[in-house]
Amino acid sequence: MSQFTPVSAALRGDIAIGATVEVRGWLRSKRDSKAGISFLAVHDGSAFDAIQAVVPSSLPNYGSEVLKLSTGCAVVVTGELVASQGKGQSVEIQASAVEVVGWVDDAEAYPIAKKRHTFEYLRTQAHLRPRTNTFGAITRVRTTLANAIHNYFFERGFHWINTPIITGSDCEGAGELFRVSTLDAVNLPRGADGQVDYSQDFFGGDAFLTVSGQLEVESYCLAMSKVYTFGPTFRAENSNTSRHLAEFWMVEPEIAFADLGDNADLAEDLLRHVFTRVLEEREDDMAFFRQRIDDTVIDRLRGVIDNRFERMDYSEAIRILENCGESFEFPVRWGIDLASEHERYLSERHIGRPVVVMNYPKDIKAFYMRLNDDGETVAAMDVLAPGIGEIIGGSQREERLDVLDARMDAHLREELWWYRDLRRYGTVPHAGFGLGFERLLNYVTGMDNVRDAIPFPRTPGNAAF
Amino acid sequence: MSQFTPVSAALRGDIAIGATVEVRGWLRSKRDSKAGISFLAVHDGSAFDAIQAVVPSSLPNYGSEVLKLSTGCAVVVTGELVASQGKGQSVEIQASAVEVVGWVDDAEAYPIAKKRHTFEYLRTQAHLRPRTNTFGAITRVRTTLANAIHNYFFERGFHWINTPIITGSDCEGAGELFRVSTLDAVNLPRGADGQVDYSQDFFGGDAFLTVSGQLEVESYCLAMSKVYTFGPTFRAENSNTSRHLAEFWMVEPEIAFADLGDNADLAEDLLRHVFTRVLEEREDDMAFFRQRIDDTVIDRLRGVIDNRFERMDYSEAIRILENCGESFEFPVRWGIDLASEHERYLSERHIGRPVVVMNYPKDIKAFYMRLNDDGETVAAMDVLAPGIGEIIGGSQREERLDVLDARMDAHLREELWWYRDLRRYGTVPHAGFGLGFERLLNYVTGMDNVRDAIPFPRTPGNAAF
Repeated sequence: MSQFTPVSAALRGDIAIGATVEVRGWLRSKRDSKAGISFLAVHDGSAFDAIQAVVPSSLPNYGSEVLKLSTGCAVVVTGELVASQGKGQSVEIQASAVEVVGWVDDAEAYPIAKKRHTFEYLRTQAHLRPRTNTFGAITRVRTTLANAIHNYFFERGFHWINTPIITGSDCEGAGELFRVSTLDAVNLPRGADGQVDYSQDFFGGDAFLTVSGQLEVESYCLAMSKVYTFGPTFRAENSNTSRHLAEFWMVEPEIAFADLGDNADLAEDLLRHVFTRVLEEREDDMAFFRQRIDDTVIDRLRGVIDNRFERMDYSEAIRILENCGESFEFPVRWGIDLASEHERYLSERHIGRPVVVMNYPKDIKAFYMRLNDDGETVAAMDVLAPGIGEIIGGSQREERLDVLDARMDAHLREELWWYRDLRRYGTVPHAGFGLGFERLLNYVTGMDNVRDAIPFPRTPGNAAF
Repeated sequence: MSQFTPVSAALRGDIAIGATVEVRGWLRSKRDSKAGISFLAVHDGSAFDAIQAVVPSSLPNYGSEVLKLSTGCAVVVTGELVASQGKGQSVEIQASAVEVVGWVDDAEAYPIAKKRHTFEYLRTQAHLRPRTNTFGAITRVRTTLANAIHNYFFERGFHWINTPIITGSDCEGAGELFRVSTLDAVNLPRGADGQVDYSQDFFGGDAFLTVSGQLEVESYCLAMSKVYTFGPTFRAENSNTSRHLAEFWMVEPEIAFADLGDNADLAEDLLRHVFTRVLEEREDDMAFFRQRIDDTVIDRLRGVIDNRFERMDYSEAIRILENCGESFEFPVRWGIDLASEHERYLSERHIGRPVVVMNYPKDIKAFYMRLNDDGETVAAMDVLAPGIGEIIGGSQREERLDVLDARMDAHLREELWWYRDLRRYGTVPHAGFGLGFERLLNYVTGMDNVRDAIPFPRTPGNAAF
């Protein structure tokens, strides 16, 4: 392949001073000095910073091209890598040639010309926003975080299971469903009762987008012992909030011969590991997020890395909330699901570090969570972290067929015949959790809105691009 | 977390002979000797082989439980790791305790009781088939292959871009589409013309499942330089063949400042790298595939690793096919798309190793492929490999706005306004390709049907589980 130098390699000191380098990228900015020298900031996505190229007026295309360059133009710069005299960079390129590869049509109209834009505006320019400082940094951190997650699991013997996106099952119960169909909506086939006859649809029946791969991945867990999903999931909820996407990526590990304590240990170890890797590998981007987005982000990650997570029973959490003297919007009593204000009080103010709340009332939790001996609670857990509240939700699964059956209605038992099979053939205690990848990314970067944590957000009224 | 020994670690020699170990898994088989000893083969998914546990009749639950164990039961075996006297294993466990964690309800009715099943039958038991030798091996190889791909790209500075699954665009042109909707099919909103009014649907307009992330990932390529997708894609084709799935995973790298030659180099380097990792890390599973599925699989991968891929122009390929004296089902002339028989002749018989065919007639290729100077061909490529035919398809993209516009109709130009923007603002030569992950996995394992390469296959008439 063509040999050229990533900007990151030059900035990191991988290239000897005095070497001839060729960098290829896009202009972030340009400054022309009166002395007849131009300074180009050339960016290629490989690092937070651009590299500065110092271009003398002696270049043959200086007047005809270099002076006409504007933000966004694509260039190939060749020259000697030298120590920089200027502030803000250690090295720069003394350019001996500047080739213009792609111009910007009408610099004034360039949608992301160099000035600050609102994140809201940039969502309308989702195809160009990765060229900005903020979204370039988000992209690099997202990649590092994803790679850290994949390798955390791989190195520990987990198998990545690609559970189905399209599912015939409508009973996972985690939210509203999108229907998938190839029927002609103008001439829908109908049964005698006037209902649409989906047996004539592509899959020969109902088909929806998955809300979770958990049930399916359990079947692999009970064969491979340690598994995880990392894929897109969907919610057809009409929620226009900064925390909801109709399409988002979720990580769902599942471990066999494991109980709720093992599950909490896994969640803690995973978060600590991936936060460590981000701080080690994306120091440049994290410095930007601290400076420009949220000055607590690095301390927040260090807090997770350095502190053992507290474990606390739900009932204990309720007692603390009842007796803390705070007035909450949502009243506290045993049996409620914790609201965000409760979760943040617990992790931020009462404990001051991440806390795993365990053993919730069975009536507010899903049918597949394991019933505790008290008959009132299930082995569910939420990991609450300062600054965000719930970041992980999981449970030990009900592995006893009779107890599971008692928590399912007839429709569910019929639909999930295969899930019941897992309890009939070599059932074992097992547990797992779900981690929303965009919420995790926002936690790491300090960004407020999950629409800025995924390249092309899908929300009510918007599937553009 | 609970400490117990993965079977793979014991078999690999990570544990000292004489150490006490605890393994947890499922019974693959059991043999009871007349001398009052039982031999359990315990499998936990971590390696191809089970570990043998030798259970003496002196254990307190020998008569009451051990003798009643059957294939599929979940057990925890504790004992001393010893060198094995028997054939087929180097170590075994001299059991001091066997705990039965989960029984099999009616051993006779266990759907995958120990005997050979057809792959077709096992598709109806997709929740249990990972417990078989074949599907356990497929799962481990799939994980290793996926991890090799992710890390190949990560280590070379590529960014993993999660392009949208739901898209408002119907013009990617790679195949038939699934519609995504939350409208009530019984009472569809209709416009004055009687057509369904999708402006009232969840996304405020048409929404489909993606057929490719390529167009969207190009926008990230022109900001980050090196990017790739690895995610699910969809085809609503009524194709009941061993090579088609309605839902499959695709890998799509895209590189900036790159031409078709760079693209071919990347494809070659990627395949060589990931095949090497599979042979190094999954020796046990690959030996099984060679022995039981296809005795050429290892030679085939070695052939890719050891030989430089041939490069050949499409026009040259046509000349070779016309003059080779073969009689093909589909007649050969300049302008046709190559059929599988042609592709296999070229790579298997004419060249004898992988070949990259380049520069196809523009009329048989997509609008976004770069027009060559001859005005008749585009910078497209297919990588053809012995034993499978096409394994990768890609192209250099048309980066010149005027040439691109001439290849698009008015609808396409309007719909893809943002894709045109990429050519207006700092356009650069760039290229990429698509690699179907299940087809790749079948190539590696020698399996015939892509329905066996994905955990829960989706095909016409089937979205079960």
